[in-house]
Amino acid sequence: MHLNILVQCSPSPQFKGLWRHPQDRTAAGYRSLEYWTALGRQLEEACIDALFFADVHGIYDVYHGSWDTSLRHAVQVPAIDPVVVIPAIAAVTRQLGFAVTYSTTYHPPYQCARLFSSLDHLTNGRIAWNIVTSYLSSALANGLGDQLPHDKRYDRADEYVAVVRELWERSWDEGAVVLDAAGDVFTDPSRVRAIDHHGSWFNVRGPHQCEPSPQRTPVFYQAGSSGRGTTFAARHAEVVFVTLPDMVSGARHVADLRAQAALVGRPPESVRVLQAQFVMLGRDAAEVKAKADLLAQLASAEGEIAKWCGWMGFDLAAYAADVPIETIDTDASRSVREFLKRFDAGRRWTVGDVRTMVLLPRRPHRRMGWLFGTPQQVADDMQEWLERTRVDGFNLMACPPSSGIDDICNLLVPELKRRGLMAGAYDRSCPTLRERYFGAGRRHYGWWTAGTGS
Amino acid sequence: MHLNILVQCSPSPQFKGLWRHPQDRTAAGYRSLEYWTALGRQLEEACIDALFFADVHGIYDVYHGSWDTSLRHAVQVPAIDPVVVIPAIAAVTRQLGFAVTYSTTYHPPYQCARLFSSLDHLTNGRIAWNIVTSYLSSALANGLGDQLPHDKRYDRADEYVAVVRELWERSWDEGAVVLDAAGDVFTDPSRVRAIDHHGSWFNVRGPHQCEPSPQRTPVFYQAGSSGRGTTFAARHAEVVFVTLPDMVSGARHVADLRAQAALVGRPPESVRVLQAQFVMLGRDAAEVKAKADLLAQLASAEGEIAKWCGWMGFDLAAYAADVPIETIDTDASRSVREFLKRFDAGRRWTVGDVRTMVLLPRRPHRRMGWLFGTPQQVADDMQEWLERTRVDGFNLMACPPSSGIDDICNLLVPELKRRGLMAGAYDRSCPTLRERYFGAGRRHYGWWTAGTGS
Repeated sequence: MHLNILVQCSPSPQFKGLWRHPQDRTAAGYRSLEYWTALGRQLEEACIDALFFADVHGIYDVYHGSWDTSLRHAVQVPAIDPVVVIPAIAAVTRQLGFAVTYSTTYHPPYQCARLFSSLDHLTNGRIAWNIVTSYLSSALANGLGDQLPHDKRYDRADEYVAVVRELWERSWDEGAVVLDAAGDVFTDPSRVRAIDHHGSWFNVRGPHQCEPSPQRTPVFYQAGSSGRGTTFAARHAEVVFVTLPDMVSGARHVADLRAQAALVGRPPESVRVLQAQFVMLGRDAAEVKAKADLLAQLASAEGEIAKWCGWMGFDLAAYAADVPIETIDTDASRSVREFLKRFDAGRRWTVGDVRTMVLLPRRPHRRMGWLFGTPQQVADDMQEWLERTRVDGFNLMACPPSSGIDDICNLLVPELKRRGLMAGAYDRSCPTLRERYFGAGRRHYGWWTAGTGS
Repeated sequence: MHLNILVQCSPSPQFKGLWRHPQDRTAAGYRSLEYWTALGRQLEEACIDALFFADVHGIYDVYHGSWDTSLRHAVQVPAIDPVVVIPAIAAVTRQLGFAVTYSTTYHPPYQCARLFSSLDHLTNGRIAWNIVTSYLSSALANGLGDQLPHDKRYDRADEYVAVVRELWERSWDEGAVVLDAAGDVFTDPSRVRAIDHHGSWFNVRGPHQCEPSPQRTPVFYQAGSSGRGTTFAARHAEVVFVTLPDMVSGARHVADLRAQAALVGRPPESVRVLQAQFVMLGRDAAEVKAKADLLAQLASAEGEIAKWCGWMGFDLAAYAADVPIETIDTDASRSVREFLKRFDAGRRWTVGDVRTMVLLPRRPHRRMGWLFGTPQQVADDMQEWLERTRVDGFNLMACPPSSGIDDICNLLVPELKRRGLMAGAYDRSCPTLRERYFGAGRRHYGWWTAGTGS
């Protein structure tokens, strides 16, 4: 089983209001190296596979047509750049992996390729790229990217991935750096080449600016759940990060994802699927209940609503509670209807119903996105997820954000190790993050399906 | 006196061929965290002010119309991204500053502002931005930036700096993050505002994505030496990085720079000037000579020529040695003539003369860009530079690249401390890099000339 911890370089990213929790270390720590290096050491001690960094550009400003609520409740703002947090943690760890969200919308592919090669060199092959296509009009207002229709974003991202893979995989041969001191040759020029990419969206000549890194290509993460997003994941992703609403539909989605990968010629085992879950743990039922009560007390409803409205581009404050969503005819309301289908396709949702649904995570229970209970209960639920849906592991969002990570490391991980679901130590024969997922010697699927990739 | 060490995240950036030096650690180390963290600890031990990272995007491909020579001699290729090296060094140091080259041509200002705020938070106020406007057509071929005429690049950069300063200095008030747990307010929205910038080159609404960092605005470095570059530096730079060819013309240039700063209303002491110098040290005359001989033996002439041709956009291989530069009429040859004027305005330079001049640094001596000799001789020369040109310190390029840094730390710094030119320890009353240059409590000149900057 693979276990990641999901974080964001922001004071209270997953649970609005929990920066006020008495054991919170995130509100001040998110911008300090000491906080991140301590977290890295703690996760490596627990043999966590990777620290996953969510990220956003811009600010959520849809709810009430303003960013005031986002600021008041620290709804992913302020937020620093996760890319520069990783090397500091890498400097104090040896095995922990890092998956970082990096948008194809905001960065030219040539720079993206150089950045990830740099991170892969510095971390000795411990880096993954969570490929996202971005969407916030708030970022556009700040001069970032073009706003494209959803499916066009993925067309562009397909080409983007093709370009960066060319730079990583074909521009420099293995052994191009010959270090021939007597002949005064550092790199043999005959083993480095341009990629001469001329496409619909990008013109990139190459050659790549970096010599091959331990993994060459970072592990590809992807989280798309739309039809086009799933197609993109099936084509490119090695690790797919899903948010399955329940085990029955989840099992279907996972099987569908693997079937789509097979359709593009990929072996089914070339896709690992990680289910995102909130986690709240307690030593016993009383402690679990006390933590849940404190969450309900501290959670900021307005903050949760502001985040959801920002995600969907739909302002819940603009309509009365009893207005049915289906009577609202905007681009955003169509996205909302698509989103709601995943929960109850037949229901006639009102604006008030949606608001209630958005606030549900403030009350944890043993279904609907949560792993909740004693370590034994949570491990039972995780086993059930693994067996019934065939996911390969989890991307955990600890609640409360700081002491919840302590709980995962101190309560849950020992239980998972006892059950043999997690190894007691990192496998030294798999030094890179990709090898940890796919076995010793594995390279990006483009390499191991197409030989050397050349 | 201020002392920086200039590096680049590349195997052999300043002295082509010296990756072959028997004590070299850079050729393999440039892409490993252990190399950089050890270097950071060493420089902090010596009380160096800052580690300065040069950088380039793309590859030099002008000489012979090809990048082969650049690859063969590792002419700033391969090169990883310095931005991600800094946090790792910051994680193992407390006082050492970092100045990093970051191009206004290749990154949107909103991202630039976020990146430097992130670095300033993580380093606790130890970051400087070396503002460059980029020029390589090789980068353009990789989909990076637009190629603008030289002066237009600076016009655009003026606006760029205005935008990022607005984000850093005006978007978030001091104390906007109120952390009011009882009232459930993380940030007071009334103390955060849009910047609503609509200019010739950029449209950026804001607000900034980061809360104010220790320095808010990174220390501004700039290295422009052209007329327009000097105007830009006089307007914006707090630390100007110069390459004065000799003390007489150098003194004029420094005085002119300070006069230009005064013209735009800045106090003369708001500009610190650092002279770039190659450094080669030996315990005695025999050791100095032996090191110079080894340099002459290892230096790659072709690599030096390829770098210079890349810089100037002028292919020295395209003309016979006896062709006078003045008879060549291209944009690039005009730049070359401008460049040569700094050395000998009256001379009739041929292509062969230029080639000879480019190769001069392979033979160190006590003038022309070098600090060369015993620690006593070098300290004497540094004192003369300080007195005669009124520069405030140096940006040192160690030769050989690895053991030369050891020599600076072990031979030169003790001599400078003995003479009282360097303090024996960092001044703890000046925790930020800006305060180290300008005194305790100092902020960016925009703040301390215009009050709070609002």
